[in-house]
Amino acid sequence: MIKQTKVLAFDVFGTVVDWHGSIAAEVKRLNLAADPNEFATAWRTGYKPAMAKVRSGKLPWTKIDDLHRLILDDVLNLFNINSLSEDQIHELNLIWHRLTPWIDTVKGLSRLKSKFTIVTLSNGNLGLLADMAKHASLPWDLILSAEVFRHYKPDPETYLGVANIFDIDPEQVMLVAAHKDDLVSAKACGLKTAFVERPLEFGPHVTRGDLQQETFTDYHAKNIEDLASQLGC
Amino acid sequence: MIKQTKVLAFDVFGTVVDWHGSIAAEVKRLNLAADPNEFATAWRTGYKPAMAKVRSGKLPWTKIDDLHRLILDDVLNLFNINSLSEDQIHELNLIWHRLTPWIDTVKGLSRLKSKFTIVTLSNGNLGLLADMAKHASLPWDLILSAEVFRHYKPDPETYLGVANIFDIDPEQVMLVAAHKDDLVSAKACGLKTAFVERPLEFGPHVTRGDLQQETFTDYHAKNIEDLASQLGC
Repeated sequence: MIKQTKVLAFDVFGTVVDWHGSIAAEVKRLNLAADPNEFATAWRTGYKPAMAKVRSGKLPWTKIDDLHRLILDDVLNLFNINSLSEDQIHELNLIWHRLTPWIDTVKGLSRLKSKFTIVTLSNGNLGLLADMAKHASLPWDLILSAEVFRHYKPDPETYLGVANIFDIDPEQVMLVAAHKDDLVSAKACGLKTAFVERPLEFGPHVTRGDLQQETFTDYHAKNIEDLASQLGC
Repeated sequence: MIKQTKVLAFDVFGTVVDWHGSIAAEVKRLNLAADPNEFATAWRTGYKPAMAKVRSGKLPWTKIDDLHRLILDDVLNLFNINSLSEDQIHELNLIWHRLTPWIDTVKGLSRLKSKFTIVTLSNGNLGLLADMAKHASLPWDLILSAEVFRHYKPDPETYLGVANIFDIDPEQVMLVAAHKDDLVSAKACGLKTAFVERPLEFGPHVTRGDLQQETFTDYHAKNIEDLASQLGC
């Protein structure tokens, strides 16, 4: 017997909020001597390699705020930006706490919340995700993070951890993400999967070539409101 | 320089929700052959000794749902109740996920949320606290639990853990609780403290003798709405 889906677990950066647009806007606002899109791309490019160091044990457990700061220092060097004080760099690093949701996010989540338990499953740390939710009025039932499991996605401990927290089977959890590698890993753990297209995730100059339907996704949605409609909310 | 309070961390069982009244009502609803108030008291009496076994290492990490179930089995034996099926016992154990908030709770928390980040700091597990928040519309910014820190209160790791999550000093966190032992332990870790009177926490037949003002509390409130008023919300 197939058990009902109870929990929707959302990837956050790119799926729920627009990291590229938010960072580019902040670079413009601060008048930094860098192309805003290139700066945003460079900062995000350091993200997976930094987490890989934690996942492989090269670095001890380090939260995303601190990884973001390590990468930011490199990016500022790369662009030869020396104009910021320590306080200003710290403040810039916290832009990840204030990322802007996509236009369909808040309404879509609110609709889904009426039928499902909606949670985050993000590599972002708890303080970051709580600040973001407060800033952007994201109506999570529970904020879950790699920080709870002390493992970064795509480690299985994260996907299976959600099921364990709610004492349900993995098939009763659906991962919602704009990234196919995340969905493949969730599927391998027995979760349901929903892909959300985010054509502008990497900025206005990057055309994503991976928005087609796949066999490993149970749902394929234009955005979170579309997913809510497909799930009968 | 004294830094501003940023985060209010709430004890939950007794402070935010009425465990005694909710359990007694469930015992009545199920027509169990036991005095509802005695049943509620007996279940809760097993709580601290069970956690103490985890804190001392006698038991490995065990979440509250499972500790509640161990105690419930004992309580059902104590009252010679053999009428429940395994499914019914499991369902009864989940009453802790559906506890009723005190009448001032939701409005008080909503007022406090406008000025502070409001979080739980409970020994209840994450799934329990998320279900409770959804059921009772508790507007938490973040649900924190002993389960995140793998330590039960009053271990210092829990109180200091809240400050660490938000990257702030312990004095910028205020514990709000109806239990003085919890507040004493928080104070010892450098947190601010607020006591909330809950004269009916232990049921209608128990008069609490510990509701007087203390030197180790920064605030002393009749209820959560009163605390919101005292904090200018």
